[in-house]
Amino acid sequence: MTPEIDDRYRRGVAVLQLLSGEAIEQVTNKVAEIAPDFARMTIEFPFGDLYSRGVLDLRTREVAAISALAALGRIPQLRVHVMAALNLGVTRAEIVELLMQISIYAGFPPALNALAECHDLLIDKDERTTT
Amino acid sequence: MTPEIDDRYRRGVAVLQLLSGEAIEQVTNKVAEIAPDFARMTIEFPFGDLYSRGVLDLRTREVAAISALAALGRIPQLRVHVMAALNLGVTRAEIVELLMQISIYAGFPPALNALAECHDLLIDKDERTTT
Amino acid sequence: MTPEIDDRYRRGVAVLQLLSGEAIEQVTNKVAEIAPDFARMTIEFPFGDLYSRGVLDLRTREVAAISALAALGRIPQLRVHVMAALNLGVTRAEIVELLMQISIYAGFPPALNALAECHDLLIDKDERTTT
Amino acid sequence: MTPEIDDRYRRGVAVLQLLSGEAIEQVTNKVAEIAPDFARMTIEFPFGDLYSRGVLDLRTREVAAISALAALGRIPQLRVHVMAALNLGVTRAEIVELLMQISIYAGFPPALNALAECHDLLIDKDERTTT
Amino acid sequence: MTPEIDDRYRRGVAVLQLLSGEAIEQVTNKVAEIAPDFARMTIEFPFGDLYSRGVLDLRTREVAAISALAALGRIPQLRVHVMAALNLGVTRAEIVELLMQISIYAGFPPALNALAECHDLLIDKDERTTT
Amino acid sequence: MTPEIDDRYRRGVAVLQLLSGEAIEQVTNKVAEIAPDFARMTIEFPFGDLYSRGVLDLRTREVAAISALAALGRIPQLRVHVMAALNLGVTRAEIVELLMQISIYAGFPPALNALAECHDLLIDKDERTTT
Repeated sequence: MTPEIDDRYRRGVAVLQLLSGEAIEQVTNKVAEIAPDFARMTIEFPFGDLYSRGVLDLRTREVAAISALAALGRIPQLRVHVMAALNLGVTRAEIVELLMQISIYAGFPPALNALAECHDLLIDKDERTTT
Repeated sequence: MTPEIDDRYRRGVAVLQLLSGEAIEQVTNKVAEIAPDFARMTIEFPFGDLYSRGVLDLRTREVAAISALAALGRIPQLRVHVMAALNLGVTRAEIVELLMQISIYAGFPPALNALAECHDLLIDKDERTTT
Repeated sequence: MTPEIDDRYRRGVAVLQLLSGEAIEQVTNKVAEIAPDFARMTIEFPFGDLYSRGVLDLRTREVAAISALAALGRIPQLRVHVMAALNLGVTRAEIVELLMQISIYAGFPPALNALAECHDLLIDKDERTTT
Repeated sequence: MTPEIDDRYRRGVAVLQLLSGEAIEQVTNKVAEIAPDFARMTIEFPFGDLYSRGVLDLRTREVAAISALAALGRIPQLRVHVMAALNLGVTRAEIVELLMQISIYAGFPPALNALAECHDLLIDKDERTTT
Repeated sequence: MTPEIDDRYRRGVAVLQLLSGEAIEQVTNKVAEIAPDFARMTIEFPFGDLYSRGVLDLRTREVAAISALAALGRIPQLRVHVMAALNLGVTRAEIVELLMQISIYAGFPPALNALAECHDLLIDKDERTTT
Repeated sequence: MTPEIDDRYRRGVAVLQLLSGEAIEQVTNKVAEIAPDFARMTIEFPFGDLYSRGVLDLRTREVAAISALAALGRIPQLRVHVMAALNLGVTRAEIVELLMQISIYAGFPPALNALAECHDLLIDKDERTTT
């Protein structure tokens, strides 16, 4: 790993730690065994290059991530970003509302599937507090 | 039109006026000629039922709309919501940044196409700064 | 729930009962826990607003539902509508034929996956009778 | 062209003539110049192999085609099958209704775009009634 | 089965045997029970008509298959063609590289999901030799 | 632009020059005006990071690009990579054959649309042979 690439990687890890420690592992673990370079790129480009640019705050970036991933039906990554949003203080009710809105753009099935597949993350354990 | 449906329609129009007067026409005009009921539903369900629920502010809803529509490559509706976001005070630099981020989830082509197809809306007429 | 919304909901439930009692539960159950308003909307808009308009009979609407859902690869909803079509008297052979035709528009994989994922619903238990 | 392939081709052309003479040209013309074998396959497999099997009548097959193509946003082929459906006696109001229903499964944008892109085919030349 | 159709089927089986004996079963088994004609068509058209044309060698056709299927997120068929590519002598490192490249066109999630879902096929059992 | 980023950019430009001088402009021009950083990233990540890794030769990478882009229906980028493939010596007949094969995975419409939209690039100017 050249020093300059290391720099983008370190910036990416720094962003991911603001989002979720668990998320780092989820993003890279299984893939790292067969494609270690791609696990590194998955941190460098999205988080090191884009998320770390500022311009948009992390909350806005997570709203964008959840919306795009739910619309495309990419469940494993959707779950990572729902966790990240909860860690940033977005409430369960707000995330549910976002997923409901996706029905407008991508139809009811992706919205229903996103809600069902994130059921465990979005269910209110005691009394609908947030994180 | 029954009185109660009329109510959802009026709520929808009220939201659309906060977003963009022009947008109302763009959403309904061409389709209204051949499918007037669907033009009405396009205001009732997305804007009358969902946007008007509160929970999320309109800025957040437009971030979600732009992200989902760019990811799915739905250009005419993307343009409507870019206009709406600009009317709400989202800056050109922020919208450009959102579209850049979509490359993570849906690849470079939808991000590049979204930027190219919204070029006229996102170009800065006087000072041409970007991010 | 306001009286007028209740009206759309009741119309939707009435349609769903023609399609399949089981389907009502499948459409709403899991999601209702975390997004009760969206479970209600999933009955109101598709079934209360659209299906109940007449113009097309329910059999034609189910042919459309199965075709669109198979093309998009939305398996949980495809299964609900295959069950509904069987309840309406569409034969297993006709549904298989519909799914085969989807290969033209969306490729062999969605057609093969749709057939495999609905295998239990489409297998002829004794001698290729319908429902 | 071997005799047996010729047979599938002839069956396909026979089906296409029931649907629309114009459709044959639209399906094959432009592509035939650079990929004549594929133009032939486009008649053989969809129309010669699948449409000609019976099991479903042509009207049902066109409902399926329009639904899948609108959901996937494949405009040129959607237009061919809207023309074919009109030739089979499906009314403009029924086709509009089908396209409206697609909003449930694929969102409002593909339904709106399908209606807008088939505007010239679906507009009622003399009396402009809708549903 | 008419003699001429049998011919396309036999050509398709011959190609599939070059790719993978196991693949034949995977392509047809589960679907054959409910849609035997479609199982046959799945061999006839893709393998009997297209793969057997020459023009492109089988290695190039498998590169195309893996790229398209990963981009579209069609996992069961992707696995069949990863197996076929390995049987043709494409190395694990090359397939991993192909899946990484898909992130450019379809985003990181389909590339990550493809790698994760083919983990067992792509993991190097002893010391990162190829097939 | 930091020196190390400049390095990835330079590697990317070097790859693009092997593919097509014209392609560089097509990839970046229109977008560069409103999103100069993204135009740079479009060269850095795909071409500087991925294409320049070796492992796969450029011909194989272009087969992958064309297959994925045709399957996803991303026409502007498909055209860029068809040009690049032609520059690398891939024949028109081979590209046509690749696009035909996409019908298996994504259906006939994306294959037909890809062929029609690249008609000018794939037509043989002097002798008009095909496959």
